Amino acid sequence: MQQIFYEIKIRTKGQGLYNFTEQTLNWLKKQKINNGILNINILHTSASLTIQENADPNVLYDLKNFFDKLVPMDNKLYKHTTEGIDDMPAHIKSVLTNNQLTLSVKDGNILLGTWQGIYLFEHRLEPQIRIISHHFFGE
Amino acid sequence: MQQIFYEIKIRTKGQGLYNFTEQTLNWLKKQKINNGILNINILHTSASLTIQENADPNVLYDLKNFFDKLVPMDNKLYKHTTEGIDDMPAHIKSVLTNNQLTLSVKDGNILLGTWQGIYLFEHRLEPQIRIISHHFFGE
Amino acid sequence: MQQIFYEIKIRTKGQGLYNFTEQTLNWLKKQKINNGILNINILHTSASLTIQENADPNVLYDLKNFFDKLVPMDNKLYKHTTEGIDDMPAHIKSVLTNNQLTLSVKDGNILLGTWQGIYLFEHRLEPQIRIISHHFFGE
Repeated sequence: MQQIFYEIKIRTKGQGLYNFTEQTLNWLKKQKINNGILNINILHTSASLTIQENADPNVLYDLKNFFDKLVPMDNKLYKHTTEGIDDMPAHIKSVLTNNQLTLSVKDGNILLGTWQGIYLFEHRLEPQIRIISHHFFGE
Repeated sequence: MQQIFYEIKIRTKGQGLYNFTEQTLNWLKKQKINNGILNINILHTSASLTIQENADPNVLYDLKNFFDKLVPMDNKLYKHTTEGIDDMPAHIKSVLTNNQLTLSVKDGNILLGTWQGIYLFEHRLEPQIRIISHHFFGE
Repeated sequence: MQQIFYEIKIRTKGQGLYNFTEQTLNWLKKQKINNGILNINILHTSASLTIQENADPNVLYDLKNFFDKLVPMDNKLYKHTTEGIDDMPAHIKSVLTNNQLTLSVKDGNILLGTWQGIYLFEHRLEPQIRIISHHFFGE
């Protein structure tokens, strides 16, 4: 039984979904592992993690657009306004989505569907450095 | 320590919540296990997993209805429209809910509240075959 | 390898977010553990779990307020009305957020960002006793 920790840093350039499946798989393939759990956590509260379709980029555009309409950037709607017009909407969007993903690893591969990719969902307007913790636990 | 993988296939007949708690428990009870983690993932991006009340069917109706109003099937709202009027709304609903559930198993039983059931939440209109990966990791 | 189970009970006094990070950490620090997975589940379907900013209380106010507007307490909107005006909205809010969190433990500490706290999100109006299951699995 082994536990391996790893951090991926992603530099975001504004709102949207960033596919980091390949970075995760590249790291995983270098490990001598077989089966186990891969726990992925984002250590921020204004961005989130999600699994989504990796085929049509329009899906990613529509996702970003839907969340922008659902959670408007309008300071009149919120009390927490000191960190910018996008900060409180970013917190709300992160609660509506996910902070963490727990994936299964079998024969060295992550169990994902054909069309599934692992995404960072950035909710802030300005560039950010996002730390995504990876934790493999298995054999 | 042991790891056991299993797939449940569910044939859905339109939108709504499908309780598969019994199928999961039936499989689990056949295993010689005691304590561990049960990681459940849906390998699709237009359906999701959720834990909800298993008592009043009206709760399931109201859930489906709420999400339909929140994410309208209206092609004018989306760029991704080639796969049908329900496809982009299905992707959005899956991001608003969950792709995976990690449950605890104690003395061979899943730790669930009295009123909790495990549901597939289908977001597509046409019948689908949904693959739900199960991964027990424990002893 | 060891597995440790623990329950935290929280008495809620109406809707809002309740930070229980300290209770979880206090318990964890008493265990002789190093690395592993901490699986946290709420055994109810009208309250949820989320990780959010622990700095500005206005964030918590705005979160509660946003969800109240998104999911109105209006019996005309729902079929499931027998358990009170707040019950069906509570179920919907719990599906929009999370029933469970899986966190990584490294060197005896939970991997959390500086501004992250672990919260119970209560969606019912009346006081409730909420049971939150904790399951450490590691070494």
